[in-house]
Amino acid sequence: MRGLWLEDQHPRLRDDLPLPVPGPGEALVRVRLAGICATDLELKLGYYPFSGVPGHEFVGEIVAAPDPPWRAGQRVVGEINLPCRDCAQCRAQRGNHCERRRVLGIHGHDGAFAEFLVLPLANLHPVPDAIPDEAAVFCEPLAAALRIQAQRPIHPGERVLLVGAGRLGQLIALSLAGGHGELQVVARHPRQRALLEAAGIAWTGEDAVAAGAWDLVIEASGTPAGFELARRALRAASTLILKSTYASRAEIDLSRLVVDEITLIGSRCGPFVTALERLRLGLDPRPLIDGRYPLAQAVAAFAEAARPGALKILITCGDWD
Amino acid sequence: MRGLWLEDQHPRLRDDLPLPVPGPGEALVRVRLAGICATDLELKLGYYPFSGVPGHEFVGEIVAAPDPPWRAGQRVVGEINLPCRDCAQCRAQRGNHCERRRVLGIHGHDGAFAEFLVLPLANLHPVPDAIPDEAAVFCEPLAAALRIQAQRPIHPGERVLLVGAGRLGQLIALSLAGGHGELQVVARHPRQRALLEAAGIAWTGEDAVAAGAWDLVIEASGTPAGFELARRALRAASTLILKSTYASRAEIDLSRLVVDEITLIGSRCGPFVTALERLRLGLDPRPLIDGRYPLAQAVAAFAEAARPGALKILITCGDWD
Repeated sequence: MRGLWLEDQHPRLRDDLPLPVPGPGEALVRVRLAGICATDLELKLGYYPFSGVPGHEFVGEIVAAPDPPWRAGQRVVGEINLPCRDCAQCRAQRGNHCERRRVLGIHGHDGAFAEFLVLPLANLHPVPDAIPDEAAVFCEPLAAALRIQAQRPIHPGERVLLVGAGRLGQLIALSLAGGHGELQVVARHPRQRALLEAAGIAWTGEDAVAAGAWDLVIEASGTPAGFELARRALRAASTLILKSTYASRAEIDLSRLVVDEITLIGSRCGPFVTALERLRLGLDPRPLIDGRYPLAQAVAAFAEAARPGALKILITCGDWD
Repeated sequence: MRGLWLEDQHPRLRDDLPLPVPGPGEALVRVRLAGICATDLELKLGYYPFSGVPGHEFVGEIVAAPDPPWRAGQRVVGEINLPCRDCAQCRAQRGNHCERRRVLGIHGHDGAFAEFLVLPLANLHPVPDAIPDEAAVFCEPLAAALRIQAQRPIHPGERVLLVGAGRLGQLIALSLAGGHGELQVVARHPRQRALLEAAGIAWTGEDAVAAGAWDLVIEASGTPAGFELARRALRAASTLILKSTYASRAEIDLSRLVVDEITLIGSRCGPFVTALERLRLGLDPRPLIDGRYPLAQAVAAFAEAARPGALKILITCGDWD
């Protein structure tokens, strides 16, 4: 089959990839549309060692599956963690934190920037007809955005600051808009601000953020400056949610954390069922789409996604030309 | 009156201190017994700028109070934060995090290493007759220990690791013993280990701590090595409670925190009512007492408290000779 192959931080197109073969309880999925995420760009930069087909945000259709009610042609999205179902974490129902997990397009399992992929049926969710491919492809990052509210429910009237209005930040903003909190988003780029305005979400520049004044702060910029801004914005006895994996190491004043009784919460993958429900009810991530490339131009798509301020770049994996 | 006076990191005895005068809604308290805490030693080392009478762990008796049901001679313990009752934190019922708070013997308000102190009646709690002075004097740090369970309830069967078995660590261990979790305490010194054994609490050496295996880790050593050990001990999707203010700045791998969805919780002052109830029901902190000095020997008491491995040193504030 055709796909994008990453090896030694070098992505290249190949038309000689073996068709993946589903094992017991797995399905072969034809990828319709896939999205490029910051993690994909980090794989290319060598932040994580990965050789194979990258890509973990997708919508596809089942080609072959063993069991009803699954049927060929069924549109699906898929959770990205493949747990071993045997380790201590798996036995404690924390498969997303399986000690031996493989992760679609990230670790030990080929991903979505190809014509086909294989996933366990347990990872797949049918896509309601009301949700077009261009929205369904956002299911994985939208689920990650919704993880925030699963970890830390937002109470009426709470002042919520979101630092970062990029790919993930925009989805977090959409996921929180209309909820209980009073949301403000720190946005740098004019396009980010325009998108927020169009969705009726309040934004602010970095310099205008009140220090020590927020009940809940969400760091989704992934930059040291964003982390510092988030930290300063926290009031005492408040919560900081860390959503970006690329902020790397940072120095923290632990004494301050103790005296001010700050809670820090790391946040990763989230609930697909809730994400699909929000998409079905009208949450529309499609304004985030900044470009759409056929699979044959996946290398150019990566370059476009790496452009500062670029939002979502999609790859139509069935299109070779 | 007589008391210990700290100025320019230099503690000295004075017998010319003015008797503190209670304002409206405040009480004059004769200090019976006061305990030396790590924070007191840090004040002496100049970690925080403070001039005045240090000391914030005490049991005393009311000399004069304006309102019934308070009466002269009533034994009391007292919460240490004096909130302004007017700022945003106070209005949100978070007086312990008041932006303009004074803190008994720590910030802007003279403390307990003297014959008398003044506190708002709202800060005072009557001590039940069943609790002797030598146990009641532990009320403040025991309340701080109990804060942990208020912030993060411990579920049946959870594996709980406590790093540090000093003054505060021992009280945390006592507060958790007999609870829902399976507790193990990292203890360095033979005396710390013997105390834990006597209380039926499991201890371990640093080298024997399993990595990535604990549901809840409590850092109460206040050392960089203790923080590192605590961090390594966490399993994915677990919680680290930071209880020590003197660990200072530390480097944290934020990406790890995000990928493993770790929760970090800073923890400070706790519920006096619960602490008094635990003391009344038989929690006995008195084995932690390593020495008892009259007020006139308070400087020697500080030196003794600073000795590595020393646990609780008490000052009997009514005794001058």
